[in-house]
Amino acid sequence: MIKPEQLLQALQIEFEKQSYGEHPIELYEPIRYIMSLGGKRFRPLLTLLAASIYSDDWENAIKPAMAVEVFHNFTLMHDDIMDQAPLRRGKPTVHEKWNANTAILSGDVMLIKAYDLLLDIPAEKFRRVLERFNKTAAEVCEGQQLDMNFETRWDVTEEEYLGMIRLKTSVLLGFALELGGIIGGADEESIQLLYSAGENMGIGFQLKDDLLDVYGDPDKFGKQVGGDIISNKKTFLLIEALSKADSNSKTELDKWIGLENFDKQEKVAGVTAIYEELGIRAFTEQKIQEYFTKGLSSLHALKIDERRKKPLLQFAEQLVEREK
Amino acid sequence: MIKPEQLLQALQIEFEKQSYGEHPIELYEPIRYIMSLGGKRFRPLLTLLAASIYSDDWENAIKPAMAVEVFHNFTLMHDDIMDQAPLRRGKPTVHEKWNANTAILSGDVMLIKAYDLLLDIPAEKFRRVLERFNKTAAEVCEGQQLDMNFETRWDVTEEEYLGMIRLKTSVLLGFALELGGIIGGADEESIQLLYSAGENMGIGFQLKDDLLDVYGDPDKFGKQVGGDIISNKKTFLLIEALSKADSNSKTELDKWIGLENFDKQEKVAGVTAIYEELGIRAFTEQKIQEYFTKGLSSLHALKIDERRKKPLLQFAEQLVEREK
Repeated sequence: MIKPEQLLQALQIEFEKQSYGEHPIELYEPIRYIMSLGGKRFRPLLTLLAASIYSDDWENAIKPAMAVEVFHNFTLMHDDIMDQAPLRRGKPTVHEKWNANTAILSGDVMLIKAYDLLLDIPAEKFRRVLERFNKTAAEVCEGQQLDMNFETRWDVTEEEYLGMIRLKTSVLLGFALELGGIIGGADEESIQLLYSAGENMGIGFQLKDDLLDVYGDPDKFGKQVGGDIISNKKTFLLIEALSKADSNSKTELDKWIGLENFDKQEKVAGVTAIYEELGIRAFTEQKIQEYFTKGLSSLHALKIDERRKKPLLQFAEQLVEREK
Repeated sequence: MIKPEQLLQALQIEFEKQSYGEHPIELYEPIRYIMSLGGKRFRPLLTLLAASIYSDDWENAIKPAMAVEVFHNFTLMHDDIMDQAPLRRGKPTVHEKWNANTAILSGDVMLIKAYDLLLDIPAEKFRRVLERFNKTAAEVCEGQQLDMNFETRWDVTEEEYLGMIRLKTSVLLGFALELGGIIGGADEESIQLLYSAGENMGIGFQLKDDLLDVYGDPDKFGKQVGGDIISNKKTFLLIEALSKADSNSKTELDKWIGLENFDKQEKVAGVTAIYEELGIRAFTEQKIQEYFTKGLSSLHALKIDERRKKPLLQFAEQLVEREK
């Protein structure tokens, strides 16, 4: 049976070999930099896991899988400019280490390099993949725009928020799995199921991110617990709290949101207490479970030998259980 | 015989029909805005003119031709952020009218939409075009990076400058013609000749831009004559002047370049006088002529009925003679 570690190692070797480009160095160095920061590489891994269900030649999916990861890192490079983020995976962001112009232009080239990696796909599947990639890529940008729009709005509904994270995060997970299915040679129904699995698990994944930011174990989470609360980030938890609050807790919540000067720990404790009071934690956990269950059930519905889908299923279950 | 006006009109109709996308409006409105600012559309026109040499079904090349124009406008949207340009075709740039984040993200989507328009290419030619488009697109970014690098360097050589404008401007003109040839069904030799024609005319075209900025007729040029001199822009003329100047004129040139406060008209007159003294105008005109001659000779070398290439040749000759 294929092991995710084996696929990850194959990916790692290819990423190390990948040159992106040489001259001018100012353009290509930031690409190597952001790609060297690592990350879990779980998007390309999903592609390889899906491909390996349908074909033993999962190596054929390595370059296209890398396209997904390069695209993802392109979005990080540009999003970090827009969000004025100083750090990415604990290291200075590209626009901080160099400058915004470098991050814009190197990001542009990364997007082009993602398309370049897709060229590895066999001719008869190439066009279809391109169409789907274009649609997914545009949707990810739409999600980022909605996310920025939400920053200045206080009436974002649960439905709007779920729609935004679907675009910003989960369609790319759906595409990653779909891509593996297409390259591996899956039938149409299975390709749709793979997409749907990624789409639903992606939403669960992002909601879990929102949850861990408040309830994660500080030793495991890697980021500052409560960071979203401190910055008034409109997460699923905050949106639910705003909509579920009675007038007392609404006043309390508005107070914390409106404070310009505050003790960070106090604000995190104060807002978390409101979440507790409103049952936000349990409600969010239930939503996460719903989306993961839906995603996993799509994988279970794949009409193929259970042994072949086991590696993907096991990996998906790890995603559900993650604590960082 | 096909007339450029006829092709331009067909392009115009398709551009007006093109929606790019709807939601969120903040993402797509800036695309419609920059595309509505017009411009000469001569890149897609080159594609259609080249296609029409080899096929009467030049309409097949419309969407791919539009991809070239959308890509070009994507580069303008991002370059304008990097160059902090307030105006584009006399109207506020996207990052001025909205903000830099909008210009980054809408630009990203434009690049994706350019790939979308290329999907119109028949399957058997699609992969080849994508490869060539990716290479060209990356080169255009490399050219922009070199252009930015040159801003802080005073030892840019003629060769480096010509290399930069080849990447930033002329490879896309080469690709525009090549694309028309591929879609029209030209033989390999002709496709190479078309690319080479665009590449050389593109360099001539950019040098002419540099020349017109100083010597253009203010009534025809559209931009402020002398703008490049006022901003110390490293044009072909300035680079030649810096390399050809004797110690007297070098001192004079350095003086104008170094002045923080100056009368614009005086600086333009002063630097232009140095250009005159060093024979820069005649030297530049000769270079332009060389590149255009080389480009036109590639077109003349196309082995096809003269009548079929006449529209492209006539249009190319207009480009040579342009005064704005």
